[in-house]
Amino acid sequence: MAHATRPVRYAAWLADGVQSAADRAVSNPASLGIGDIIGFGGGQPASESYPLEALNRAYSRAILEDGRAVLPYGPTNGLLALREIVAERLGQRGIHVGPENVLILTGSLQGLHLVGRITLDHGDTIATEAPTFMGALAAWEHQQPEYLTIPVDEHGMVVQVLEEALHARGPARQPKFVYLLPTFQNPSGVSMTLHRRQKLLELAEEHDLLIVEDDPYGEFWFDETMGSMPPVKSLAGAEERVIYLGTFSKTLAPGVRLAYAVASPETINLLARAKRGLDFHSDTLLQQAVVHLIRDKEFDFEAHVVEGRAIYKARRDAMLDSLEAVFSSEAKWTRPEGGFFLWIDLPHGVSGDAVAAAAQAEGVAVLQGSIFYPNHDGGFNGLRLSYSNATPEHIREGIERLHRGVAAVAG
Amino acid sequence: MAHATRPVRYAAWLADGVQSAADRAVSNPASLGIGDIIGFGGGQPASESYPLEALNRAYSRAILEDGRAVLPYGPTNGLLALREIVAERLGQRGIHVGPENVLILTGSLQGLHLVGRITLDHGDTIATEAPTFMGALAAWEHQQPEYLTIPVDEHGMVVQVLEEALHARGPARQPKFVYLLPTFQNPSGVSMTLHRRQKLLELAEEHDLLIVEDDPYGEFWFDETMGSMPPVKSLAGAEERVIYLGTFSKTLAPGVRLAYAVASPETINLLARAKRGLDFHSDTLLQQAVVHLIRDKEFDFEAHVVEGRAIYKARRDAMLDSLEAVFSSEAKWTRPEGGFFLWIDLPHGVSGDAVAAAAQAEGVAVLQGSIFYPNHDGGFNGLRLSYSNATPEHIREGIERLHRGVAAVAG
Repeated sequence: MAHATRPVRYAAWLADGVQSAADRAVSNPASLGIGDIIGFGGGQPASESYPLEALNRAYSRAILEDGRAVLPYGPTNGLLALREIVAERLGQRGIHVGPENVLILTGSLQGLHLVGRITLDHGDTIATEAPTFMGALAAWEHQQPEYLTIPVDEHGMVVQVLEEALHARGPARQPKFVYLLPTFQNPSGVSMTLHRRQKLLELAEEHDLLIVEDDPYGEFWFDETMGSMPPVKSLAGAEERVIYLGTFSKTLAPGVRLAYAVASPETINLLARAKRGLDFHSDTLLQQAVVHLIRDKEFDFEAHVVEGRAIYKARRDAMLDSLEAVFSSEAKWTRPEGGFFLWIDLPHGVSGDAVAAAAQAEGVAVLQGSIFYPNHDGGFNGLRLSYSNATPEHIREGIERLHRGVAAVAG
Repeated sequence: MAHATRPVRYAAWLADGVQSAADRAVSNPASLGIGDIIGFGGGQPASESYPLEALNRAYSRAILEDGRAVLPYGPTNGLLALREIVAERLGQRGIHVGPENVLILTGSLQGLHLVGRITLDHGDTIATEAPTFMGALAAWEHQQPEYLTIPVDEHGMVVQVLEEALHARGPARQPKFVYLLPTFQNPSGVSMTLHRRQKLLELAEEHDLLIVEDDPYGEFWFDETMGSMPPVKSLAGAEERVIYLGTFSKTLAPGVRLAYAVASPETINLLARAKRGLDFHSDTLLQQAVVHLIRDKEFDFEAHVVEGRAIYKARRDAMLDSLEAVFSSEAKWTRPEGGFFLWIDLPHGVSGDAVAAAAQAEGVAVLQGSIFYPNHDGGFNGLRLSYSNATPEHIREGIERLHRGVAAVAG
């Protein structure tokens, strides 16, 4: 018998057999910060803030009190009690829905994948921000979509560019959906203005578009008097147009993989149908544990989120201060009003890819801006810096290391 | 603004907008047995057997001792400690691999989906047993594959039929992979002979085919002197040819969603790449809890599996005895040597669909055989009966109810 050199005939999307730069960057454990490396790479919450005692109590109750009920196969849509809690919490953000509008997900990346699965055929178009969350691109990779990318400025996605593109392309070449992170955007840290949010909904109505609002950071605003910008999902006209994705990854912990989609009951049914072929349902023990955690009288989940805001605000301040102190006028950066990230544009002609490598050699992990551009046509002298999982002291040290990395590249 | 009547332009696989019969049957909660309904419908493990105390101890350790390490985002391939345990346990079944051959999954359905994702383009062919596990079809639904179905007799898949089909189709029309459950098959309960397993591997080599061996029930054999049939993955020639799927759903609990794929490191890399766009990684807290559970000195996981064998053997015996007592010569059924299911062929001309409905009215949930045929061309007077999650007493009562359902249909 001959030796098998090609045991699998791969699907077309794998034909090149090569990992993308984004895939390499995301799957590089060092990007999260290990050992002596200071980690500005990942979207990790502050590891000091995991509520271990309360989570342990919650799991104990779920196992010992409810184990025989929640350990069998469960409902694809998720446990009703958790869907009710999600709907109730969304009311705080102005999203008024019931449990029939909620699908529990195994992480919000699964939600992005499911949206793709119910809408995309091979080669369809998706409109995204540029830059955008590069992880989302992996969720749609196998349909090999075309990306219509819309620039982001300090007020979020430039909706007028989207409008012009939609008019120019005509009805036959519309994107299947518009994907955006309007609040404390990943990777830029900026938020979209209310006016642009409303304008986006008008465009969606005019062009019969679906909007996918990804909101992992929206609960972490830094100005308590202002709160967060209202989610697109909370605005008039959003009911049938917007699929909203929220997550427990940043408020609780990402390792446990728990998120939710919010949409019309018809869309929820389609997403659930697609989910049934993906993982049948999300972990029901985890769902029940989170129900206990949020209802725990000895633990205040809402206060825990408020504490998170204070932690991330202090870290953003430390990073902005360090950047001012070290970089002065050589570079420009965003000043996020919430969330985990800021974006820095390096001095003209300095490559973000080169700086990311040089910075890692200096002991700080950052992500090069180019990987956040779906069409590989921008971000060449940008970097995304995450301040969420480093102490102010480490942030100061990390920015100094980064500066040495830039100096090494700029020469 | 006009009301949106069609806010989403769906992907082609959803064009009919209709749930399949299999989808309806699987998503019907009554199929699992609720209230006064006796449940012979689902593949649920015995709910009495969940090791609640040990699981609680394991989660407590994972949270309180390791929480800050395992609650952040984790590795897509899974925790090394769990991959080592999986590899070690597989040695008992004759599968000798290392952690580099293991990918941790969010349920084995995810493994089926991932295999499809790395191999299938739209309209490609998959070879399956007929009948086969209907849940698998949902995992590949969006690629709208063609099914080459191979009959199953009392010795498992009839490999000679596969051989003839492969020769008749020629190299250009080969299936991308052969999907089968060779041991204590779902839904028939039969096992494939060693000779056929070897023959299948020879065919795979000859025709350059990939084999997907799904083995959720292989640890539950009823004859301790014989053990289980060796997995196809354990045989000579399997290394590059076979992707093996195992799960903790039946040995621990299905609600927590934890399984694993075993393949060559190259194939594991491709599956992991596809998984990165699906849920990034499986729940790391759950993975660490299972590591603690299996290493727990106060709990013997292997003894727990052995106990499961005794429980399911007693239930199979109760179901076979009840069938003998009630149905006598009117019908034929399989006599499984392990696993959760048996298959019954009703008297000629009696519709399984009609009996499933009539049986539910009598208070017992069963699944009609027709849903297990990918091309909807068989199983019309068959039923799948699960004995795994009903006590012997309920099994006797349930078979009597089923008999009344058959009588109601046969008239």
